[in-house]
Amino acid sequence: MAEKKVKVGLVGFGTVGCGVAKLITEEADAIAAKTSLRLELACVVDIDTQSPRLVKLADGILTNDINRLLDDDTIQIGVELVGGTDAAKQIQLKLLEAGKDVVTANKALLAEYGNELMHCAHKNGRCIAFEASCAGGIPIISGIRTGLAANEIRAMYGIVNGTCNYILSNMTSKNEDFPEALSQAQKLGYAEADPTLDINGGDSAHKLAILASIAFGYEIALDDIFVEGIESISKDDICYGGEMGYCLKLLAIGQKASLAARDSSHGLQSTSHEARVTRHEAREKISLRVHPSFIAKDNRLASVDGSFNAVSIFGSAVGQVMYYGRGAGMMPTASAIVADIIDVALGNSATTFRHLCLKPRNQTAALIEKIDNLVTRFYIRLMAKDQPGVFAQVGKVLAENAISISGALQHEGQGPDNTVPVVVTTHPTRQSKVTAALENLDKLDTICSRPVCIRIVDIPEDKEG
Amino acid sequence: MAEKKVKVGLVGFGTVGCGVAKLITEEADAIAAKTSLRLELACVVDIDTQSPRLVKLADGILTNDINRLLDDDTIQIGVELVGGTDAAKQIQLKLLEAGKDVVTANKALLAEYGNELMHCAHKNGRCIAFEASCAGGIPIISGIRTGLAANEIRAMYGIVNGTCNYILSNMTSKNEDFPEALSQAQKLGYAEADPTLDINGGDSAHKLAILASIAFGYEIALDDIFVEGIESISKDDICYGGEMGYCLKLLAIGQKASLAARDSSHGLQSTSHEARVTRHEAREKISLRVHPSFIAKDNRLASVDGSFNAVSIFGSAVGQVMYYGRGAGMMPTASAIVADIIDVALGNSATTFRHLCLKPRNQTAALIEKIDNLVTRFYIRLMAKDQPGVFAQVGKVLAENAISISGALQHEGQGPDNTVPVVVTTHPTRQSKVTAALENLDKLDTICSRPVCIRIVDIPEDKEG
Repeated sequence: MAEKKVKVGLVGFGTVGCGVAKLITEEADAIAAKTSLRLELACVVDIDTQSPRLVKLADGILTNDINRLLDDDTIQIGVELVGGTDAAKQIQLKLLEAGKDVVTANKALLAEYGNELMHCAHKNGRCIAFEASCAGGIPIISGIRTGLAANEIRAMYGIVNGTCNYILSNMTSKNEDFPEALSQAQKLGYAEADPTLDINGGDSAHKLAILASIAFGYEIALDDIFVEGIESISKDDICYGGEMGYCLKLLAIGQKASLAARDSSHGLQSTSHEARVTRHEAREKISLRVHPSFIAKDNRLASVDGSFNAVSIFGSAVGQVMYYGRGAGMMPTASAIVADIIDVALGNSATTFRHLCLKPRNQTAALIEKIDNLVTRFYIRLMAKDQPGVFAQVGKVLAENAISISGALQHEGQGPDNTVPVVVTTHPTRQSKVTAALENLDKLDTICSRPVCIRIVDIPEDKEG
Repeated sequence: MAEKKVKVGLVGFGTVGCGVAKLITEEADAIAAKTSLRLELACVVDIDTQSPRLVKLADGILTNDINRLLDDDTIQIGVELVGGTDAAKQIQLKLLEAGKDVVTANKALLAEYGNELMHCAHKNGRCIAFEASCAGGIPIISGIRTGLAANEIRAMYGIVNGTCNYILSNMTSKNEDFPEALSQAQKLGYAEADPTLDINGGDSAHKLAILASIAFGYEIALDDIFVEGIESISKDDICYGGEMGYCLKLLAIGQKASLAARDSSHGLQSTSHEARVTRHEAREKISLRVHPSFIAKDNRLASVDGSFNAVSIFGSAVGQVMYYGRGAGMMPTASAIVADIIDVALGNSATTFRHLCLKPRNQTAALIEKIDNLVTRFYIRLMAKDQPGVFAQVGKVLAENAISISGALQHEGQGPDNTVPVVVTTHPTRQSKVTAALENLDKLDTICSRPVCIRIVDIPEDKEG
């Protein structure tokens, strides 16, 4: 097959940009041998044309003038690696209007302005490819869109932020407290100087918005997602949860709400009448949330350590599928970017993009399950005065809110100020009831600091039979 | 987007055929909403048109006359689910010659006659899609071809036969011996009445031939693959290996031979001069093998239990990626078949198929690394007479063959006939030396039965930093 030349322009020459430039240059022969496509890096745009980079470009490639890229009609593909949502949005719109297909890793932009960008692409007969936006090098987006196309996706549970996972892993394995683990992550480059968007769950929410829109077929807005970060997680709770058989992860969760309400088996491959009725009646309700989650230690996601990512997906036909790999970093992200460049150049991205029929946001706004209606199990820790009757009081408040206790843990000996930590776990309970109970508990004289409450997520493992 | 009608014909109406019929019928609306494609099952061909099936077809769909499918020009896609290599090959050729694209799960056929079928497809301007042929519902083929297209694949380690994994899992967890575990697997439907091709490694070799050809870019022949099955595995060895920190799996392994020779780190993301030189000098040598393998218990593949499949892939840019899911079964396999039907109907399969540039077999025959040259670690168990001097004799034979002992295990007490099991593990050693040593050991008067030898595979985990 004759080689086809594909000219690519990059906007943004930071870490990932260098990775992309390196891959395109060093692997051009291998990619041509594999795909008949001869990738050529024609233009790299960055405001900083002076700083030394890890990759040396041929003379004349690096420029601070984006018009060099926009005006060159021989360049078919523009890769936006600027990040952020302001300049990046304008750049993507300009690339599309200049008739170029866009490849990007910019999850924040897609999560916030995805619909606008998609419409612009459709209008201009172009496509946007964004495999690199979620879970870095793991081909999760094509996995869902193509590999699982025949499935109704019923649920997904993802560890999609490497920074949080690195911090929580170290808090667990090294018994570090949050500030210590964060500063260590920053020192080693696993966390940004400003880590806000990672640790407050915002970055995971961006990725969930993208993954859920593809998995469930709806335009998803960021507001649809309930978000809680890991900033206030204490190593004590990781430790107590660990004693009770749980491991703490920041999960991005998307579920058909009937499942969220039952929060149990996904009825995999169930064909019973009842299961199908339930599924159809409730099929349009979706629960979307990012929060610290206690999961069983023997769940497959519990062993995903450090900065790695993994996503477990439950499909109606396939059952459980899990993808695991590096969620960030120069070369893993570049791997996904260049895979997209190849897919765009082959024409497959355009086809997939044209056929991506997301149901419009304005028809589905009411279909997001509110967090108050979530039914799940909870881990609750109270710092209680070490005196008679405390357990009775706590039990009474929980009972008044119809919350049933599943497990309890109280170590002997005292903590600060004559207090002891009392931990209970609950059976599946509606969030609103737990919220009410926590308020009542907080008012008790015997409870000395705000109760800690962490959701327990019982991810079903797809088992034999 | 206007719906496009896609008429599909099935050949073979067994378990997977029923799953495909069920998915196409029940999920037609969902698939149309997602892809704008309206799938229609136009014709199902099977020699048995009488037996009751799990799925009810509309009248007139089921026939025993394949010409009804071949002669119907409105049917674009033919799905071959007959299995085996004789009739199935003729059916696929006829479908292609009749101008239909082919979707298949037939790994045996592809592994043996893939090149002939591919050529026929190219000649007729058609494509063959075969996602379901490897690891059932896991989208591993599109993962490698599309998602990891920018990577040089350096190694893959796969658990790709659910029957063997189910048997080995039960031998490990329930301390069953092979015949017992096999008959249990047959009783529960995890093994065929004739399980030969599963347990002798043949089925895994078929899948490895397909995966390796895509990952490494060469036409691979079945003869290129060294195959050893699990028929002679004893629970004793699983137990002794377990005590030494290993878990036994039947692995399908494809490695660039420079890695096989070193059998250690894959030098992930290494950019040192030395690493690159090694890689380029040896890049064309490939080691392909299926054999029982002791892997570290904390490796991610060790926790893949029962009939599940998983494949770990090491790419030059992405590092380690792992895919996990159901490798067989009615609906998981149907999930992959229907995903392929959608991909074919969108036109993406044809593009990918046209651009699949495998280097021809006749230019690469010499490039397969012989098993004798494999350097790996070994587990060796001897049944030795319980008398002085045995360890010295064994040590002498190993030393004469330049084999260095890495660990040893001998329990107190005697086995049958006054013998004791003596287990040693070796440092990385060339296979040919171990083969020679085993022959010499077998000749010793003090060794009472043929030595057992199982390869230890040190799968690197891609770690931080």
